[in-house]
Amino acid sequence: MRWLVLISCALLTTGCGLRRSDPPVPRSATAQRLVELGLADGRAYELLRELVTAAPHRLSGSAGAARAVEWGKAAMERAGLSNVRLQEVMVPCWERGEVTELMLVEPAPGGPLAVTALGGSVATKDTGLEAALVVVRHESELDKLGPAVAGKIVLFNRPMPRALRNTFAAYGNAVPQRVEGAALAARHGAAGVLVRSMTTLIDDVPHTGGMRYDPAFPAIPAAAVSTQAAERLAALAAKGEVRLRLRLSCRTRPDVLSANVIGEIEGREQPGEIVLIGGHLDCWDVGQGAHDDGAGIIHCLEAARLLVRGGLRPRRTIRVVFFMNEENGLRGAEAYARQHGGEPHAAAIESDHGGFEPKGFTSNAKGGAFDRYKRIVSALAPFEMGALVAGGGGADIQPLGMRGVPLFSLLPAWHRYFDYHHSENDTIDAVNERELQMGAVALAYLAWALAEE
Amino acid sequence: MRWLVLISCALLTTGCGLRRSDPPVPRSATAQRLVELGLADGRAYELLRELVTAAPHRLSGSAGAARAVEWGKAAMERAGLSNVRLQEVMVPCWERGEVTELMLVEPAPGGPLAVTALGGSVATKDTGLEAALVVVRHESELDKLGPAVAGKIVLFNRPMPRALRNTFAAYGNAVPQRVEGAALAARHGAAGVLVRSMTTLIDDVPHTGGMRYDPAFPAIPAAAVSTQAAERLAALAAKGEVRLRLRLSCRTRPDVLSANVIGEIEGREQPGEIVLIGGHLDCWDVGQGAHDDGAGIIHCLEAARLLVRGGLRPRRTIRVVFFMNEENGLRGAEAYARQHGGEPHAAAIESDHGGFEPKGFTSNAKGGAFDRYKRIVSALAPFEMGALVAGGGGADIQPLGMRGVPLFSLLPAWHRYFDYHHSENDTIDAVNERELQMGAVALAYLAWALAEE
Repeated sequence: MRWLVLISCALLTTGCGLRRSDPPVPRSATAQRLVELGLADGRAYELLRELVTAAPHRLSGSAGAARAVEWGKAAMERAGLSNVRLQEVMVPCWERGEVTELMLVEPAPGGPLAVTALGGSVATKDTGLEAALVVVRHESELDKLGPAVAGKIVLFNRPMPRALRNTFAAYGNAVPQRVEGAALAARHGAAGVLVRSMTTLIDDVPHTGGMRYDPAFPAIPAAAVSTQAAERLAALAAKGEVRLRLRLSCRTRPDVLSANVIGEIEGREQPGEIVLIGGHLDCWDVGQGAHDDGAGIIHCLEAARLLVRGGLRPRRTIRVVFFMNEENGLRGAEAYARQHGGEPHAAAIESDHGGFEPKGFTSNAKGGAFDRYKRIVSALAPFEMGALVAGGGGADIQPLGMRGVPLFSLLPAWHRYFDYHHSENDTIDAVNERELQMGAVALAYLAWALAEE
Repeated sequence: MRWLVLISCALLTTGCGLRRSDPPVPRSATAQRLVELGLADGRAYELLRELVTAAPHRLSGSAGAARAVEWGKAAMERAGLSNVRLQEVMVPCWERGEVTELMLVEPAPGGPLAVTALGGSVATKDTGLEAALVVVRHESELDKLGPAVAGKIVLFNRPMPRALRNTFAAYGNAVPQRVEGAALAARHGAAGVLVRSMTTLIDDVPHTGGMRYDPAFPAIPAAAVSTQAAERLAALAAKGEVRLRLRLSCRTRPDVLSANVIGEIEGREQPGEIVLIGGHLDCWDVGQGAHDDGAGIIHCLEAARLLVRGGLRPRRTIRVVFFMNEENGLRGAEAYARQHGGEPHAAAIESDHGGFEPKGFTSNAKGGAFDRYKRIVSALAPFEMGALVAGGGGADIQPLGMRGVPLFSLLPAWHRYFDYHHSENDTIDAVNERELQMGAVALAYLAWALAEE
């Protein structure tokens, strides 16, 4: 009732002179309405608890991922979406296996050191890989070391630069070690690879993540060590020879049938035009993927639920997509673009940067379009989430961007993300109820505004 | 070295035409310098760990508070401050005692329920206070209930309004129950008081806090129950008679000699003019007071350390004050104002809203002064902490405000504060290293800018 009053007042104030293409007051009133509705009757945290209870581990191809798909479909139906369906897709199936162990052999037997296999790694032999350690800070050092690397375990130990205020930029600086390290080291004959965990914290929690091999060289075992373990190994190696034994029992199974989950708020005037909002349903098999990307899934689900509950059905269709297999394959994103990329998408918005307090959005739009979107997003400024800054979308909507669809990404506060990302720490306890809820509100507003304009 | 270059370039760019009263470029360069220095070489989290290790419990008059004073003096000296000294002050000494227990007697024996004595509460008798429960949502209901309250335990059960985006406003709405509840209930003859914990979470953690009695009526035992316990008791009371047994063994001892800790960066031109930055060294005896107000203490200490380390000695003196006894007396604030209130203070800045990501500052300034301060703070806008909004300072600098000193308060993100505030949850694990550091950087900048202008 309160909301009807609010909106009516707004309309009365501005009279009937509103241009259809530039209705600033209804936007502000809708933003206000969604903020208050979201805070008073939000269910984001409860929905996240549902997800991480139903499927704490959701790595593509796993039983957990299958449960997440089931939950996702049912949750969309409960939120009042229409046309809820699964889009089938074959996904890779990598398993960590039972054994993950890193022991010090020299200068003195010791261990275990905090380690986790990188996603996609091959196993060591059962007795493990025992080899001398070589520590590098940068990939380019491998070329100088040349044959000195052969038969060794290479530790890539470049920290995420602490001085970068944007932790995602810091991640961008350091993460090539994790993604390309094994391929680069194998080229020089290395027997295995360790990578310093991608976090700005100095602690004993290893962070996993994706990597890829170079088919022209052998696939060698690859794992991440905690930042403390990395610093300890580097300090030991600075003093003399270090030998390690790494044991991994990872395996890659045949591809498995899985699915994207799709649902819609059908547009009231142009249902064939789509504003997509999405996140990824899969996550790594450590922690609960609460921030990555449980938060993104819940942002989308709760945004849609708030719009349905508030009776806010915009002109265009809002399509919610829970993508499968972002972490190690992007098969869901590719399948979506293949099947639906030809449909008219007015915009695509991804949430894959965690459930922290939202500051606004990034967008790949340029020039006049960017300015127009900036005005639209600015209705969120009174709630301190009205920033629009230049940037990309996320991995799952990138294929749509290649087809010219304007991309957006929710921009949450970034200081804490890499404390949790891809680690056992990424659990629901690390998510704040109100911060998560505000992200859903911001997303609900932008989806509505883009579908309405 | 990098910074010297930066500042030199800035000066070269703008030439020699800078007006002394409006030097925007050096301000921006200094803000940038402090951000990078803080992120690259920050010690805020390490300093907080020192504090909560030396003195996890620091309630006024306790042995922990005495250790905190010692640590504070040594820490200021290590940070390179000058004129480091203690300002002695007598403080109250309330102790929780050994027994804190709330049991259900009717409709069926059960318990214990999550409870914590409010600071300043009297004890029950040894065997406890057994009485029937009356639940109210608002203080005004007591007048209607009248004599029906006599001899009963009153539960004040008004939640912090979730729909308020500003959690401090929500706290302001609900906290009178905690502060005044016992006095109001005693006026109607109640035997004891319970208050719903001040948090937006629904969980089983009780939150303590200050309260006061009305000397004209009996002092009755007062405690906070967790939000879950409050909801459970309210649900039971809606069905029929509820009887409880509350046992508290609190006591108030004679006042104890304690101290404010004071240190300075002496001004290079007008050392007699002061910009004060402060937080409070005391905290409740639950948790570690990591956010309240360990974070504030560390903000001030690290801000000063960064300025000393960066060679940024402004025209006026920056005085750092660790106030004693904010939580249950304000004796430190009063003593400071009494002894130093006559000295010329250009401004006073308090940090007592937690160690979360800073958004900027609040200020009590009006009109042209506010606009001028807004321009000064806006140098932090590129780092997303450049907001200046109308508001007060904090409790410790309020007496200076009464004398006309412009007050500022650091404004961190507010969504998470009341998850931790005054509870066992307020530990260093709840503080993020980078968020805490950014608060210190923001404070360093504003203190410098106000002392330089």
